[in-house]
Amino acid sequence: VPRRGEGTTALTAAAIAELVGGTLEGDGAALAAHVAPLDRAGPGALTVFGSSRYRQWYAVTQASVVLVDPALAAHPGRPRARVLVERPQDALVDLLAHFAPVEPRPMGIHPTAIVAADVTIGSGVTIEAFAVVQSDVALAEGVWVGAHSVIGSQVRIGRDTRVHDHVSIGPRVEIGERCVIHPGSRIGREGFGFVERGGKAVRIPHLGRCVLEDGVEIGPNCTIDRGSIDDTVIGAGSKLDAMVHVAHNVRIGRACMLAAQVGIAGSSRLEDGCVLGGQVGLAGHLTIGAGAKLGAKAGVFGDVPAGETWSGYPARPHREFLRAQAAMFKLPQLLRTLEEQDAQGKTRRKESR
Amino acid sequence: VPRRGEGTTALTAAAIAELVGGTLEGDGAALAAHVAPLDRAGPGALTVFGSSRYRQWYAVTQASVVLVDPALAAHPGRPRARVLVERPQDALVDLLAHFAPVEPRPMGIHPTAIVAADVTIGSGVTIEAFAVVQSDVALAEGVWVGAHSVIGSQVRIGRDTRVHDHVSIGPRVEIGERCVIHPGSRIGREGFGFVERGGKAVRIPHLGRCVLEDGVEIGPNCTIDRGSIDDTVIGAGSKLDAMVHVAHNVRIGRACMLAAQVGIAGSSRLEDGCVLGGQVGLAGHLTIGAGAKLGAKAGVFGDVPAGETWSGYPARPHREFLRAQAAMFKLPQLLRTLEEQDAQGKTRRKESR
Amino acid sequence: VPRRGEGTTALTAAAIAELVGGTLEGDGAALAAHVAPLDRAGPGALTVFGSSRYRQWYAVTQASVVLVDPALAAHPGRPRARVLVERPQDALVDLLAHFAPVEPRPMGIHPTAIVAADVTIGSGVTIEAFAVVQSDVALAEGVWVGAHSVIGSQVRIGRDTRVHDHVSIGPRVEIGERCVIHPGSRIGREGFGFVERGGKAVRIPHLGRCVLEDGVEIGPNCTIDRGSIDDTVIGAGSKLDAMVHVAHNVRIGRACMLAAQVGIAGSSRLEDGCVLGGQVGLAGHLTIGAGAKLGAKAGVFGDVPAGETWSGYPARPHREFLRAQAAMFKLPQLLRTLEEQDAQGKTRRKESR
Repeated sequence: VPRRGEGTTALTAAAIAELVGGTLEGDGAALAAHVAPLDRAGPGALTVFGSSRYRQWYAVTQASVVLVDPALAAHPGRPRARVLVERPQDALVDLLAHFAPVEPRPMGIHPTAIVAADVTIGSGVTIEAFAVVQSDVALAEGVWVGAHSVIGSQVRIGRDTRVHDHVSIGPRVEIGERCVIHPGSRIGREGFGFVERGGKAVRIPHLGRCVLEDGVEIGPNCTIDRGSIDDTVIGAGSKLDAMVHVAHNVRIGRACMLAAQVGIAGSSRLEDGCVLGGQVGLAGHLTIGAGAKLGAKAGVFGDVPAGETWSGYPARPHREFLRAQAAMFKLPQLLRTLEEQDAQGKTRRKESR
Repeated sequence: VPRRGEGTTALTAAAIAELVGGTLEGDGAALAAHVAPLDRAGPGALTVFGSSRYRQWYAVTQASVVLVDPALAAHPGRPRARVLVERPQDALVDLLAHFAPVEPRPMGIHPTAIVAADVTIGSGVTIEAFAVVQSDVALAEGVWVGAHSVIGSQVRIGRDTRVHDHVSIGPRVEIGERCVIHPGSRIGREGFGFVERGGKAVRIPHLGRCVLEDGVEIGPNCTIDRGSIDDTVIGAGSKLDAMVHVAHNVRIGRACMLAAQVGIAGSSRLEDGCVLGGQVGLAGHLTIGAGAKLGAKAGVFGDVPAGETWSGYPARPHREFLRAQAAMFKLPQLLRTLEEQDAQGKTRRKESR
Repeated sequence: VPRRGEGTTALTAAAIAELVGGTLEGDGAALAAHVAPLDRAGPGALTVFGSSRYRQWYAVTQASVVLVDPALAAHPGRPRARVLVERPQDALVDLLAHFAPVEPRPMGIHPTAIVAADVTIGSGVTIEAFAVVQSDVALAEGVWVGAHSVIGSQVRIGRDTRVHDHVSIGPRVEIGERCVIHPGSRIGREGFGFVERGGKAVRIPHLGRCVLEDGVEIGPNCTIDRGSIDDTVIGAGSKLDAMVHVAHNVRIGRACMLAAQVGIAGSSRLEDGCVLGGQVGLAGHLTIGAGAKLGAKAGVFGDVPAGETWSGYPARPHREFLRAQAAMFKLPQLLRTLEEQDAQGKTRRKESR
């Protein structure tokens, strides 16, 4: 039976076994009130033993409840209770929500927030301190706007989307339902577009919008520019980590994952389900096919076919890159061998004269 | 004759032909109220047909007005009106300003802004909600300070410069006329300078300033440090994209273009007219000659002569880099061939004994 | 005897000689009121002559006081006074504090700040305009919270720590004494962790904390995520430059230095005293041994032993990387030679038939 303690749930070993469908061993009344990694789990902790690499920690653990891979059941260890369960890491992830402290949500509009008279506000909307919501904005049911965020004119935000603190949303941005925008991100600014006129760089007006479809998550301190003529679009369910830059007119498909510090230059397209490692850079006007994977720090200057894994700088198919890298590090020895052969050849030719 | 509609201008095909100096064909009264790319341009749209790659879109377009390259005039397509004009993309760019919605500018100082008593404020200055302007600042005519921005003491900002929202301007920064600072940028913070004293890293005081000359543009979420002894300077007309980092004592010349996520380490110099691709990194104390170009993601560890194009990591002249890369990807095959020759050679030598 | 002028100290050459333990030559009453690099140092300036590369500037300097390396004493030059001192650059650094303008610190809590009723506030705490301090926070003696910063619930901040403006501190973050957080950094947000459930990416709750030990400095616009199960920890005295990303569960040891735009993926560990150049990227779950150095822009995909210097992408020991790079740029010539030999060989074999 779940019990509340310090704002989080405590669970007995018996309840945990039932929740994950595992087999209980030891004290079913053992109570887990928080979660910790195996090497730091003390009394009151729930933890996991999922790899024999960590058996020395399991041997001495003081944890109250340990989720144990059945394949590791023979390793010695005496937690107060253990629950044998396949893929114990996954089981732990599913249990985490029970232990997560609920972040308190202030209701309504804070008196210091500045909200234009013509803003449409659904039920259950939160607008925190010092937020600024400009003219003709529509915030659907359950939207949560964090402290200090600025929502530009004519922006639309779908239900249950959370905009954290210090976010800038430019004019005419459209954001779907259940999105999350982390602190400090800048969504819908005019992009980096200039033309030369009379020897000077002159700004191209940016008439396009920035559109985030349902379930999109944007990490902290990202910059997502709006389009010049076309829109910038991030497809449903796509997740961006911290400090990702998406330039004007870029189109990202559905369910893409972009790790931190990725940069995508103007007008490039990612089809659905692409996965980009950290610090990947894409040149402009490229197409990355559906389900393609780009290794961390890849510098991509050409199209990538669907389903392929590329890496390197400039990026190539991952295996080709690994082979070339391996060969490169044999090269100094090869050069030495060839020079020696050349020298011996010359000597031999001299001798044979 | 231009007509106003929903805050933007609508233009007839005849007016467009006149504005761009092109040849009108079809219905001169066809009205364009917005701009769209060819594949998404419907009735009421102005669009462009500038490459035969897009002829299938042109064939079926419902756009009201299409700017068409005369070289492509023979391709089939029946927009309501078309305007034949050389370099139609450029013509479109010049027309965009007619369709750009004017961002409403609140006038005066918002009552929630905090402005020190000794601040000098020119005519037509805007200071938005929750901005903080500290002691002894001077804001020239037409300066626009966005919501939540913090302007440090003794800062000078030239006429018609716009500082967007959530910007931090450190003490004693000097900003010229007609500059734009996008949201979330941090200008004039003390740089990353430490000395070791007694085994600890101790901060070096930063006495220098950060100076942005006229017409500089700084993208969102950039960090431009002030100098330690010397100043950090960004020359007139230079444009920086999002998340660019400029360390202390760096000097950037006039009319340079720096793409997103570039990083420049301390005391490096860019002469006039340099162009840096996205994610380029420069080590400290380098000189990049006038007009040099650095390819995206280049890692530069040495000086680059004026006018040259370099790329790679570590960066080399671009052609040399391309040749070496091409050779590298032939290397695995070469190694295999040499190993086979070696093996055959040994066999032959054995046989000949 | 030091004298105050315009909020900074002016020092005579005699006082400077005494402070740095150097030998005075020339006018001991010459007064230095500011510091400048040798090529821009005019009357009233203190500057340094530490390398013969700059002798042409020394020859014509108008500076009032120059710190001169005794080894360069013979070079011609006539400043009003000079002070001969070993390692004059270090001596200058130690003098800088005398010339640094003191940034004015407002005392107490600004009336616009929003501070929850149950916040614990030590003596001498500053909370600037529009800051938000949420429930159950503890701010020790001398803490300085900048304008617009948001301090989440249950955060603890140690004495004399400065949080600059526009910073977001997430819930339950622990910050030690004498730390500095520069503007726009996001500390303690939930990290980028998702599991697939029913074909969708579902967030993993982040129960861990983010802990900054004493004397940590975080540059502007950084993102430091909190842990999922474990904590994210940055060890005492470590310094991070601008736009550094530290993912969930990362542990950084003591006295590490991370240059700008570094990114560290989840669960990686840096032992004490590591030095990372700009734009370095680390994959997840790695261990970087104590005192290891990673060259700028290195892409690290494996563990690095203590004390070693690695660079490249993928990173290798620095010397191996340099040798391989050098060989790579000889490769095009090598391939040509081998092809010619091959062609000659074929010709010879043909001839010998």
